Amino acid sequence: MQIARVRGTVTSTQKEPSLRGIKFLVVQLMDDEGQPLPKYEVAADSVGAGVGEWVLVSRGSAARQVPGSEQRPLDAAVIAIIDTVSVDNRLLYSKKDQY
Amino acid sequence: MQIARVRGTVTSTQKEPSLRGIKFLVVQLMDDEGQPLPKYEVAADSVGAGVGEWVLVSRGSAARQVPGSEQRPLDAAVIAIIDTVSVDNRLLYSKKDQY
Amino acid sequence: MQIARVRGTVTSTQKEPSLRGIKFLVVQLMDDEGQPLPKYEVAADSVGAGVGEWVLVSRGSAARQVPGSEQRPLDAAVIAIIDTVSVDNRLLYSKKDQY
Amino acid sequence: MQIARVRGTVTSTQKEPSLRGIKFLVVQLMDDEGQPLPKYEVAADSVGAGVGEWVLVSRGSAARQVPGSEQRPLDAAVIAIIDTVSVDNRLLYSKKDQY
Amino acid sequence: MQIARVRGTVTSTQKEPSLRGIKFLVVQLMDDEGQPLPKYEVAADSVGAGVGEWVLVSRGSAARQVPGSEQRPLDAAVIAIIDTVSVDNRLLYSKKDQY
Repeated sequence: MQIARVRGTVTSTQKEPSLRGIKFLVVQLMDDEGQPLPKYEVAADSVGAGVGEWVLVSRGSAARQVPGSEQRPLDAAVIAIIDTVSVDNRLLYSKKDQY
Repeated sequence: MQIARVRGTVTSTQKEPSLRGIKFLVVQLMDDEGQPLPKYEVAADSVGAGVGEWVLVSRGSAARQVPGSEQRPLDAAVIAIIDTVSVDNRLLYSKKDQY
Repeated sequence: MQIARVRGTVTSTQKEPSLRGIKFLVVQLMDDEGQPLPKYEVAADSVGAGVGEWVLVSRGSAARQVPGSEQRPLDAAVIAIIDTVSVDNRLLYSKKDQY
Repeated sequence: MQIARVRGTVTSTQKEPSLRGIKFLVVQLMDDEGQPLPKYEVAADSVGAGVGEWVLVSRGSAARQVPGSEQRPLDAAVIAIIDTVSVDNRLLYSKKDQY
Repeated sequence: MQIARVRGTVTSTQKEPSLRGIKFLVVQLMDDEGQPLPKYEVAADSVGAGVGEWVLVSRGSAARQVPGSEQRPLDAAVIAIIDTVSVDNRLLYSKKDQY
């Protein structure tokens, strides 16, 4: 998985019928120093993530291992809202500190 | 998924028989500022996307989670025509503004 | 899928038994201006592509969605010989013009 | 697989229910000279790897070929703790030398 | 698939139980001029490849399309020992010439 920050949304009316009701989030991938990478994903959200939150993103067939999404044409999903990231015994990110 | 803009088409007569009737679109991947990336995909179209439109592209096995394509040798598909992209509370793209 | 040009072949005697009879092509990936990229694949051929021809290459599990290859350890396949590539209303490539 | 070094952990309360009980490790990918690459994964741990240890990381659907994880939305897993890495007849890494 | 050269081995005692008996090779990816790329894989060997030999490496779910490995958490496998690589009607590599 990759660490990412939610930055926005994508909306679509004309789409694969199986995608109705899916919320598409624009998430920015972060490096392991907590800095933004020049990479993003448009990921299906199933955990209720909001703009600004740090999340874990799964890509590939993993994105369809979510109840109800097994047969949707998805290749990226937000699977968790991150509480903390610790690297080299240092707290890189804590959700609590953001609010 | 990645945000992409439809730029053209690929045609082929001699191909895997299961690919008959598939429309192949050349789509340019876009970054999260709305600028073209030096990357493209040739993606199967199932939503009726036209040249110039912004779309969502799914890659990998997701491209076969489209009714009728489950057993086609496809690794990229256009799965949605984008209405809007919003990033950092800014409207990056709106289909309405293009026409 | 990616656009590629057939450049050569790989042969092997000692291999997974399921790969007997598979023709391995060295294909050079092309960008969307028709220029070679510094990337290649060794792809299984099932459409009878020859050196110099432009083809579509599928990667990942898609390469096994070809009759008879469902259980072969392949991650890239030539799935079509390209007739034309059109980008921005310009004919980038036409097979007819090559011969 | 890639060689990686365990550097930290990610915790999450609000996540896909199937992920309860999974330990998420931040692992830094290493090159074949034993130097850190500017790439990481957040990988599910099933072998009890600790910070500082070198491990093998599998990505993609392989991450779900672990008993109990078949239907979890995981795209990276620590599958082995490395004892030794030998390259060009040289011992690049030995777990024993670290302790 | 990618062309690679076998450079070494990885050993591990503490690992997913399904990986017992698997030989892990460090293989260096090669470009289509026969030069080493700054990329490697740790790949499961099932064809008896030795250090110095050129091989074909399959990645992703293809690595599990090897009898006995269907449910192992592998994302890379050596699937063939290369006899010859021909590019642009030139013999880039011949196993015979190496011995």
